[in-house]
Formats: sequence, structure tokens, C-alpha cells
Amino acid sequence: MSARTTGQVRVVGTGLLGTSIGLGLTSLDVDVVLDDVSPSTLALAVDYGAGRRAAEGDAPAIVVVAVPPDVVARVVAEELARFPEALVTDVASVKAGPLAALQAAGAPVARYLGSHPMAGRERSGPIAARADLFLGRPWVIAPHEASTAEQAVLLESLAFELGAIPVRLPAERHDDAVAVVSHAPQLVSSLLAARLVDAPDHATDLAGQGLRDTTRIAASDPALWVQILSANAARVLPVLSDLRDDLDALLGALADPAAPGAQRALADVLAAGNDGVARIPGKHGVDLRTTTLTVLIDDRPGQLARLLTEIGELGVNLEDMRLEHSPGAPIGIVEVSVLPEAAGGLEADLERRGWRVA
Amino acid sequence: MSARTTGQVRVVGTGLLGTSIGLGLTSLDVDVVLDDVSPSTLALAVDYGAGRRAAEGDAPAIVVVAVPPDVVARVVAEELARFPEALVTDVASVKAGPLAALQAAGAPVARYLGSHPMAGRERSGPIAARADLFLGRPWVIAPHEASTAEQAVLLESLAFELGAIPVRLPAERHDDAVAVVSHAPQLVSSLLAARLVDAPDHATDLAGQGLRDTTRIAASDPALWVQILSANAARVLPVLSDLRDDLDALLGALADPAAPGAQRALADVLAAGNDGVARIPGKHGVDLRTTTLTVLIDDRPGQLARLLTEIGELGVNLEDMRLEHSPGAPIGIVEVSVLPEAAGGLEADLERRGWRVA
Repeated sequence: MSARTTGQVRVVGTGLLGTSIGLGLTSLDVDVVLDDVSPSTLALAVDYGAGRRAAEGDAPAIVVVAVPPDVVARVVAEELARFPEALVTDVASVKAGPLAALQAAGAPVARYLGSHPMAGRERSGPIAARADLFLGRPWVIAPHEASTAEQAVLLESLAFELGAIPVRLPAERHDDAVAVVSHAPQLVSSLLAARLVDAPDHATDLAGQGLRDTTRIAASDPALWVQILSANAARVLPVLSDLRDDLDALLGALADPAAPGAQRALADVLAAGNDGVARIPGKHGVDLRTTTLTVLIDDRPGQLARLLTEIGELGVNLEDMRLEHSPGAPIGIVEVSVLPEAAGGLEADLERRGWRVA
Repeated sequence: MSARTTGQVRVVGTGLLGTSIGLGLTSLDVDVVLDDVSPSTLALAVDYGAGRRAAEGDAPAIVVVAVPPDVVARVVAEELARFPEALVTDVASVKAGPLAALQAAGAPVARYLGSHPMAGRERSGPIAARADLFLGRPWVIAPHEASTAEQAVLLESLAFELGAIPVRLPAERHDDAVAVVSHAPQLVSSLLAARLVDAPDHATDLAGQGLRDTTRIAASDPALWVQILSANAARVLPVLSDLRDDLDALLGALADPAAPGAQRALADVLAAGNDGVARIPGKHGVDLRTTTLTVLIDDRPGQLARLLTEIGELGVNLEDMRLEHSPGAPIGIVEVSVLPEAAGGLEADLERRGWRVA
């Protein structure tokens, strides 16, 4: 897509998200204007190629406010006043609060349309930014009474340009949703990782992939998350209260696993976890829309290319693939995901051609 | 390493772990004898190349019991009786219980030495097995009063042959350790994933990588985990009780985030999570031995094969690769990991050939 879709874009706040937006748009030849209260952070983002500094005569079509949650409403109000022709959006993780604050302050919210790209990293700052941060990720746009469909379309174009998938969701529903899929997981991961603080070395030395995965986001920035969680506390609270109730039942079962009903209580927690994971759409492990074949390949240059070339010759499009190759192992394992209707034929064809399909 | 290190190895139980051990040893020309109470599971493991069926005259140097936790002690006792010359080990996730049960039953524990490879997958059964499952993973060997250093060395050789890193740890300390680094994370992941069961679709549709990582192991087999958790309940209980105390403090802060001390309470949980993650040795996501390039490809058949073919033409061997492709997205993201010395040249060469390297 080209620059004409969005015109000049001003990004206020050049942290991870702001700089990533700048990098993505600049690579599409959009005129990106960057601003940040920190001169050094701004200089880093400019050096990084995320855009140019603000100048006299800037006339942004869109202002993207990418500042910490506690100053979002204030900065959005400032930008609305400063650029009376622009559509102003923000990318904060909580959406109802800023809108309410702007309305209460009498800001011209008819030109404000909040958004939230569901992308991030446990690292922060412009150095962690990447142009492809939003690729394939949902980008929530939160329409309200005073916003228009045209504005939503404009922001959707911006999201598309960055490779994201726009999703319209009112602020309240967005905030309910992220309480479950983002804010509660953050706190649970932190609570779990905190168990390691006083664990002996011989315990942490046994850490496997399960522990690493469950605690990865516990490395996130506490200052940022205190703000996010404070802003959405009322919605996170019931999610974690329910979890606490389940935890209490679990503690009872662990206290006497031989008691009547204890095994069942343990199994219920684990089965509910199975059911919950199954609700996550697409990808990673199990994708219900695709079938995965496991092919063993020799660890020689060109083997993977040959496999994929042959899959292409067979007319099958890959939906996803993953190579697992452990250094030192004589074979690699390739998991190729294809549409279910193609899987059976592909497996037979590959075996006929001499591939080892597990 | 060669077969002489360990001699004939008998594997009882051809699920994920038993079959993976068989695959790994067979690839090193060890004579692997397989047995399983389920004829179909056994047939699958034999077909898979994990070893041969038991026969008259088998004389294993080592018997590896890889059966569900609740029957470990019984099967170990049977194998000790059946092969009076063999060293018998098991690979169960809990170590104190089986040893105590064998001692109580008067089994010849002088030939039993428990072990626990810290490797697994959320999938189970022989089909999920892989020869490289243990590569780089700790493999706990749990010496006890009646076991000898020579036996520990023999099991260490077995672990080394499978690419694992042997760690000697008495049963009690092992069980304390896995309560923190494996069993508590399993339950916490399950408790978190259970929040998704009744979540609306518009919430689960926003699932990002953080949620996927924190809930991945919640897909694990409940039947297996009820046994593991029951066997180690007394050690998991205090870990989760501590977590519950922290959770209660957190719920108080979320109930009134503007109250004095509430922000601090939130920050404390998040900071403790940071400190806990920092205790985990090494890293994942970041492989210090390789450099990862991100290449954007069009979502058309053959594009990935063309990329990999060209990388091969450039004389560069892939250490690892991952395709990320979101359904509906017009492009895919390929992360190719190569040796650091090859990365710079490869990036330049690929860009010269017209590839988009992010």
C-alpha cells in the first residue's frame, strides 16, 4: 500500500510501539513526524530511521499518541488542540479510561478514535522496535458515539499498512477482553516467576521450556504495567478472584490428595486448562484449521529446500511450518501444516518420493 | 559415543519418553529392546524405529522403566526380579515415592537408581517422540544409600549418549526442585487457561503471544498430571500457598488501586516477577550461538522453497528456521537462524536478490 492512504502521520512518544509504527510507515514512504518529551529517546528513534523531527508547517492527517497510559488523555487533548484538522488516536492498552477523561475535560472527542495494537515485547524502548511488530496481529479500533465510520476506515488503513488486522470493538468490550487475555496473564506470570526468587540454584538449574514459557512475560516493565493494571483494575479483579477460588479448591486437594474427591479436583483444574487452551484461535501447537505432517530430514544443506520444492511441485500450499533442529542431531524434524483436505494425499505423495513422514 | 558405553538397553513403556530414548539409542547402534503392556503402542514404537521387540535371551545392562507414575514402583520391582544382572532405572517426574515404595516392599534397591530427564512435550505417545528430545536438557540421577558411584556413571553415560546433561540430585531435593520449576507452573498455567473457557470470542480473538506462552503447557495430559501432582502434593502445596498469599495481596490492590500502598503492591508483584525470571539460567528465544534474520515473503506457493534454495545456493546452512504466517495475511515472516559469521553476508546477498529482510 502507498502513502496516499494515510497522508502525513505524527507519532508522539517514540518507545517500542511509536518507533515500530514509525519504522513500518517510513518503509512505505509515509512522511512520519516523530516527537518525544525525551530528546535522547527521540534522537534514537530518528537515527533508527523511524521518521523525522517535527518542523514548522507539519500538517498530520493522523496523530498517533504512543505515550505511557497515565499521560495518554492529557497528550491526546494537547494534540487535538494543536492540530485541529487531524484525527488523533492512541495505542494504549486500556481504552475506556482515556475516552472518559477526554469527554470529562470537554476535549473535541469527535476527532479522537482510540486504538490498541495487540503487539508488544517484553523489551521496551526504541531499540526494541521493529517494523514488523504488528504483522498479523489484531489492531483494535474502539469506535464511540462521537466518532465516524470514515475515521475508523482511516485508522484501519493505517493498521493494514502496518500488516495488522483491524478489529472494531467498543472501549468497554475491549477492556473486558484484555483483562482476560493480557492483564490477568501478566500478573499470573509475575506471581509464578516470583516463586523462583528464593528457589535454590539446583532447582532453577532444572528449568525447562515450560517454566520459560510461562514466565517469559514476567520480565515486562513494572512501571508500565502498574499503570495498565491500575487503569483496568476493576476488570482484572473478577478474573483473578475466580482464579483464586479455583486455586483454593486446588490447595485443598493438594493438602490431602488421597481424600475422596481430591483426584477429581486436580483433574478438573487440568481439564479446564485443556478446554481453555482450545479456545485460543489458530497457531502454535494445534491449529484446528490445518493438519500438521511431521517429516524427518537429513541434516544436510538443501534438504529443507528440496522438501519444500517438492511440496510445491505437488501443488500444496503451506499454511505454516516449523523446523526443529537440535545442533548435533543427525536429523531435522519439519512440521508442515497444510489444509486438512490436502494432508492425506501429501503424506502419501511424500512417502512415495522417499521422505520419512512420522 | 558407541554402544559399548551402555550395552543392551531394555525400555519398558514406549510412550513419549521411552520411545524417544529408544530412537536416540538406536541411532547410535545400541541394541534397544522395547516392551509395553499395549501391543499397539509397542508396534508403533517398533515401526518408528525405536528398537526391537523383547526376545528369549535378552540380557540388558540397563532397564529403563518409562511407565506412568502410579505403576513405576511395581514395574521397577518386576524388572529387578526378572533381570537380576541389570541396573534398573525409571524416568518418572517424582523420585522419593518410588524409592520409598521399593524399600518398603523389600525390593533389591541396590540395583535401582532413579532418574528424571527434564524433557517433555505437551503431546504424548510414541508418535510425539523424537531422538533429540533430551538434547541439552538436564537429566537428574538420584543416588541413594544403597546405590553406587559406578551405577551413577553408567546412567550418566546413557544420558550423555542421548545428548542430555546429567545432574546428580538426591530424590528429596529433586522433588522439592520440580515442585517449583515444573509442577507449580503446570497448575498455574492450567488455572490461567481455565479463565478462557467462558471468555467471549471477541476476547480470545485478541490472544497474543503472551497468552499463548503462558497457557501452552495447560494443554498437557490431565491423567498423567493428576498422578504426578498427587505423588508430589506435599511439596507443591507450600509453593502454591505462597502464591495464593501474594495473589490475595494483589486482589486487595486491584480492588482499590488508588488506596495508599496499592500502586506499590502492584509494583512489588511485577518486580518480584522480574527477579524470578532473572534466576532462570540461559535463555530461549535468544540463541547465543546463532543470529536470526527476518525475511518477509509473499504468501504464494513456492516462495519459501525459493528462499531456502537461494540460501543454499549462497552456501549458508540453516541452523534453525521458523515461518510465522497468520491466516489471511498477505505475507509470511520467515526467521532464519544462521551462524553469526554468515549473517551479515547473507542479509546483503538476499537483499541484492530482491528479498525483503526486516
